[in-house]
Amino acid sequence: MTGLFISFEGVDGVGKTTQVERLRAYLESRGRIVVTTREPGGTALGRAIRRLLLHGVDDGPADIAPRAEALLFAADRAQHVAETIRPALERGEVVITDRYLDSSLAYQAGGRELTSDEIRNLSMWGTNGLLPARTYLLDMDPAMSHSRLTHAEDRMESAGDEFQRRTREAFLALAAAEPERFRVIDASRSIDEVWESIRSDMDGLLSGDAGERAAVDVDRAEGSRESAGESA
Amino acid sequence: MTGLFISFEGVDGVGKTTQVERLRAYLESRGRIVVTTREPGGTALGRAIRRLLLHGVDDGPADIAPRAEALLFAADRAQHVAETIRPALERGEVVITDRYLDSSLAYQAGGRELTSDEIRNLSMWGTNGLLPARTYLLDMDPAMSHSRLTHAEDRMESAGDEFQRRTREAFLALAAAEPERFRVIDASRSIDEVWESIRSDMDGLLSGDAGERAAVDVDRAEGSRESAGESA
Repeated sequence: MTGLFISFEGVDGVGKTTQVERLRAYLESRGRIVVTTREPGGTALGRAIRRLLLHGVDDGPADIAPRAEALLFAADRAQHVAETIRPALERGEVVITDRYLDSSLAYQAGGRELTSDEIRNLSMWGTNGLLPARTYLLDMDPAMSHSRLTHAEDRMESAGDEFQRRTREAFLALAAAEPERFRVIDASRSIDEVWESIRSDMDGLLSGDAGERAAVDVDRAEGSRESAGESA
Repeated sequence: MTGLFISFEGVDGVGKTTQVERLRAYLESRGRIVVTTREPGGTALGRAIRRLLLHGVDDGPADIAPRAEALLFAADRAQHVAETIRPALERGEVVITDRYLDSSLAYQAGGRELTSDEIRNLSMWGTNGLLPARTYLLDMDPAMSHSRLTHAEDRMESAGDEFQRRTREAFLALAAAEPERFRVIDASRSIDEVWESIRSDMDGLLSGDAGERAAVDVDRAEGSRESAGESA
């Protein structure tokens, strides 16, 4: 059995965590061993790097140069792939990650002095070119996801809303550029409706309709729980 | 007055620290403001990164993947350039660093799964292409530098000697590939003789014999201590 690598992307509040768990349960019910993980902080080294990025260092100024920052993000992802993702794929398991490369690209697209191509190249080098076979972009109007997160408060237009809108547009542009890898899922619907869209696509992926990397996986993906267990 | 960037390279024990100090004093006597620095650990962020590389992280395995490690080294150098080296050069000062890019290339040439080109590309991206105008490679037979470091002990042939020999060869190959930037200095001679070679080359560099980047600097490098002070 060959591993299968899936990522979920989208701004905060669109329901990624819920759908990751639904997909995990579904794939386990079909006999697959599933590893769920997330970025940032998928490994201990990654968490230490994030602490540096968020809190700076004790004995000096916390200003981290843009290129140093980008290299640290790429190091986090490189370790995540080498320590967690690739070994699981090599054991034939399914890896579902909550955020991956596309989040770096979407969130850094708005500002900074670096280009998306530079960020992508660093990350692709760090991961030795590993991309998901499928990326689910959970998409909705940021005003709506924001209200889900802060429904107890009065919402006001803010710079944060503008940032969320720009990030959403960046995600949609990434999806448009790689239609084979991405599925854009309308996340403004009910949890069940969103899940139905994902399940339907996943069934297609598992039955071999959806591209070579997935197809490689699928030939032996119909096995029982027992055979999946043996492959680990 | 334009900044001037100089690096010293070579295996441990060849006398880099002594010669860096001599060069600093000499340039200061000629009216330049001089910043001396070193890798690794030229910045607080760099020291924090090195602690991660040397000691791993508290809450997990310390095995750092080769690509993550290379990205962390590059992040250290990127911060060193952005925080320390480039600002000093922009103020018109002289920066002398004890080790820079070439040490990464020479020390990583022996092992690892990565190529020198990969390491160089990361570092060049991280530093936005900053190379020294002059690199002094202090070179001697590793047996001799080793005996300087451990003269109180009986020396024995060891794997460490072989590593030092390979590293020396790697440094010499780097110097041969960039003869305009490098000067290979025979460091088996006395401190005064070694310094005389460096001073003589530096005089040429300062008087405009030695390539465009140095020449740009030299036009106004003959100024007094006062004018150097004013440029800071």
